[in-house]
Amino acid sequence: MNKAVNIYDTTLRDGTQGEGFSLSGLDKIRLAERLDAFGVDYIEGGWPGSNPKDVEFFEEAKKLKLKHAKVAAFGSTRRADLAVEEDPQIKLLLDAETPVVTIFGKTWALHVLEVIRTTLEENCAMIRDSVKYLKGAGREVVYDAEHFFDGYKDDPEYALQTLEAAAEGGADILVLCDTNGGTLPEEVKDICGAVARRIPAVPFGIHTHNDCELAVANAIAAVEAGAVQVQGTINGYGERTGNCNLTSVIPILQLKKGLEVVPDLTQMKNLSFFVDDLSNNPHFSRAAFIGRTAFSHKGGMHVNAVQKVAHSYEHIRPELVGNEQIILVSELSGQSNILIKAEELGLPLEKGSEEAKEVLSRVKELEKDGYSYESAGGSLELLIRRALGSYEKKWSLSEYHCSFRQYRDGHSPVCDGVVKLEVEGEPAFCVAEGHGVVNALDKALRKALLPFYPAIEGIRLIDYKVRIIDGEEATAAKTRVLIVQSDGERSWGTVGVSDSIIEASWIALTDGIDLFLQRQG
Amino acid sequence: MNKAVNIYDTTLRDGTQGEGFSLSGLDKIRLAERLDAFGVDYIEGGWPGSNPKDVEFFEEAKKLKLKHAKVAAFGSTRRADLAVEEDPQIKLLLDAETPVVTIFGKTWALHVLEVIRTTLEENCAMIRDSVKYLKGAGREVVYDAEHFFDGYKDDPEYALQTLEAAAEGGADILVLCDTNGGTLPEEVKDICGAVARRIPAVPFGIHTHNDCELAVANAIAAVEAGAVQVQGTINGYGERTGNCNLTSVIPILQLKKGLEVVPDLTQMKNLSFFVDDLSNNPHFSRAAFIGRTAFSHKGGMHVNAVQKVAHSYEHIRPELVGNEQIILVSELSGQSNILIKAEELGLPLEKGSEEAKEVLSRVKELEKDGYSYESAGGSLELLIRRALGSYEKKWSLSEYHCSFRQYRDGHSPVCDGVVKLEVEGEPAFCVAEGHGVVNALDKALRKALLPFYPAIEGIRLIDYKVRIIDGEEATAAKTRVLIVQSDGERSWGTVGVSDSIIEASWIALTDGIDLFLQRQG
Repeated sequence: MNKAVNIYDTTLRDGTQGEGFSLSGLDKIRLAERLDAFGVDYIEGGWPGSNPKDVEFFEEAKKLKLKHAKVAAFGSTRRADLAVEEDPQIKLLLDAETPVVTIFGKTWALHVLEVIRTTLEENCAMIRDSVKYLKGAGREVVYDAEHFFDGYKDDPEYALQTLEAAAEGGADILVLCDTNGGTLPEEVKDICGAVARRIPAVPFGIHTHNDCELAVANAIAAVEAGAVQVQGTINGYGERTGNCNLTSVIPILQLKKGLEVVPDLTQMKNLSFFVDDLSNNPHFSRAAFIGRTAFSHKGGMHVNAVQKVAHSYEHIRPELVGNEQIILVSELSGQSNILIKAEELGLPLEKGSEEAKEVLSRVKELEKDGYSYESAGGSLELLIRRALGSYEKKWSLSEYHCSFRQYRDGHSPVCDGVVKLEVEGEPAFCVAEGHGVVNALDKALRKALLPFYPAIEGIRLIDYKVRIIDGEEATAAKTRVLIVQSDGERSWGTVGVSDSIIEASWIALTDGIDLFLQRQG
Repeated sequence: MNKAVNIYDTTLRDGTQGEGFSLSGLDKIRLAERLDAFGVDYIEGGWPGSNPKDVEFFEEAKKLKLKHAKVAAFGSTRRADLAVEEDPQIKLLLDAETPVVTIFGKTWALHVLEVIRTTLEENCAMIRDSVKYLKGAGREVVYDAEHFFDGYKDDPEYALQTLEAAAEGGADILVLCDTNGGTLPEEVKDICGAVARRIPAVPFGIHTHNDCELAVANAIAAVEAGAVQVQGTINGYGERTGNCNLTSVIPILQLKKGLEVVPDLTQMKNLSFFVDDLSNNPHFSRAAFIGRTAFSHKGGMHVNAVQKVAHSYEHIRPELVGNEQIILVSELSGQSNILIKAEELGLPLEKGSEEAKEVLSRVKELEKDGYSYESAGGSLELLIRRALGSYEKKWSLSEYHCSFRQYRDGHSPVCDGVVKLEVEGEPAFCVAEGHGVVNALDKALRKALLPFYPAIEGIRLIDYKVRIIDGEEATAAKTRVLIVQSDGERSWGTVGVSDSIIEASWIALTDGIDLFLQRQG
């Protein structure tokens, strides 16, 4: 390993300790291949024998052809008062046939005496024996010192002795674990320094948890104090508040510290989304570096500045991590956001023009009423088109009506929608049944417009989001509906706000259809 | 201010720069009251005149009676080449009539020359004049040095000169802003040290962003270097990746650094959830300290250890921040939650009983369908009562029906609700008009039940929340409705889940009324 700092991924093992983060054996194999392609150095696959998924993974892993990464099996030191060669768990670690074995041992006297209930001396012997035995079996051995920082703060001398036991056993690296995640960066730095001075011959690594929202900072502090391995998980998944987030720590090391850690950082965002998808978790928009909004700009002044000098409000170029800049339009926005949006759409809105001012004041007014254009570029496009006079009214509403009838147990509810329109001067009066009243209205509307505009046949509603804006007035609260429609090639978002969820849906729905018709010309 | 470190909350201002984080004027007032009750020292309300919501807030804020916190109006220094007393934006800052005014100015030559396009000298004059003028008007003045760290790294001497200009103007505090969020803790520490040496007479504060997942670490590093004010937002809301998360930094300062920052940290989790609810954002389960899973234990070994010695896998006692330990995937722990709830309600549910098992399995089943009982104690109480056989059916549904009719522009929509019930063996068939179909159904239901149970007259719907559980299937997605009703003395929450928002609302509504009737006996 020629890197100054190597990356040890434990998404498959410590990551799956997180609530709501589960991977099947096959998922684990797929993720291992992705992690390898991305360029992590170690992939901790699981704890052999602890559960059927891990057994499955290590069986499959024997056939894996990885380009770069080494697979590690995770387990603990031998049990107290049992010869290492007789410990069934140690045997399972060897049976996994991985090039690397990682074992954890106890650092903290509290745990030795009260949790595993043995003597301090026996604990050191357990560490030394286990490492030595695994080394003797030809494995690269990573020693994870569980609760190292808590143990050190309680009794520095004993904590260092446990590391010495691992070093004596021949451990390739000593990994200092902040298992409970309660340590601060300054403490990490000081304690890592003490380890480096006491045991200069064996390199050390760092394994942190995010209980104080400091896991990344603690890993960086350890690297500054000489750590050569960072353990963590993609997106920071893991028990409680999660592990050190590799999607933050890797770009910091590479872009801010100048260390070459992975060959192509631009693949990081994809990997992050892959892990969310694989584990069926929602993407965290505010995630550093790879979050959907990590490079979004909302305030008008910032937008203005970003246009003048891109790095004025961006700490790195978003492309470096596979991300992109997003300009949001909102009540905080100045003209610039709207001008950029118009330019993107190819609409001739000029800076300082009456039309631009009109759009801006309309946006601000509507946002005060609860509208939000951040995810509703379609509705914004309609506002701009109207201001530019390039909007042609295709149809008008006379009335619409919908009803919902629910019977006693067992009988499905019946939802009807009725629309009465005037389309290009002709009346259109249609009814449809649907799965819910909004769906019924949507169907009735399309039915009424279809004879005039056959192209709307291809439009589909692909997303529908409801938000209650103010819960104060009970059922009379305002509702914001965001709708995304698609014609198979393009998709566009529209928004509606009303006291009534039905009317809000109607506004968003018809905006979306109107926009399609306007674009058709 | 006698605290060693004071807390400056900017949830209302910088927080609302975040995508998907919007607050109405009324929301802002409610949140300001909560922040004050929690004990933050400053509440930055917004930028007067930049948008209508902020104008509304500052008008209302004049009437606010806060116990402890001071409200701050935010804005920028005067424009270049304009006398400070003639700057309309400065005038708006004074018109807001807040005790504190916070203005930001430019530190970074790049911004001075290329974004606001003036000279380095004029920039310093803008800072000096603006601070002096606001001080002359009797305000406490906070000077936010925008891009301080980037500016310092580019040209330390000029960066320090801009701070000196603010100090000469009489600024009460100099706040060093890592506006782009790209600075590392070691740099923060070094640069803060340089500021403290150069300008020892004026205290300094810190304002960080989370672009490297280091906002909290950077704030802590600054405090270690002498900062006396930390700026941030509840739950870290804010532009791009968000601001420094006060719900992490406050407990670190208080519990790990021993600084008394707020009087009662146990209120923090409630405040965090309040902000999520107010802005209708989902709770982030993995959040440090206050996250739902922040003290959860999944691994069998950890659970075992935690039972032996609580702090063996917990860095603080969860109660300190208003949180609690959760043992996941454990039938027993599930039962104990329900048993605790039953005990609170005075219902005789026994540990290990068939009834307790029945409630637990029903809860698990319903939660899988999208139900959530965390804020719906009323629905849980009904489940327990049903299992105990102490539920008496008062009425049954034959059918209900609602309709919504919207006319062409200008005419208000008409919403009708019809319910057909059997109440105590007698038919009841009622219709009502409402503000929205759920409101109409609510009215019709009460009208039908009132002759039998006059006490329901006093029940009011006081909160109504809608959440779409899965946005994948367009309008066919599942909806969860949470309703809170009150009889003026007690309030209780109920929940309904359905493909249809109307049916979900109906379930929650009728659960709430049923519970009231059961309690009446």
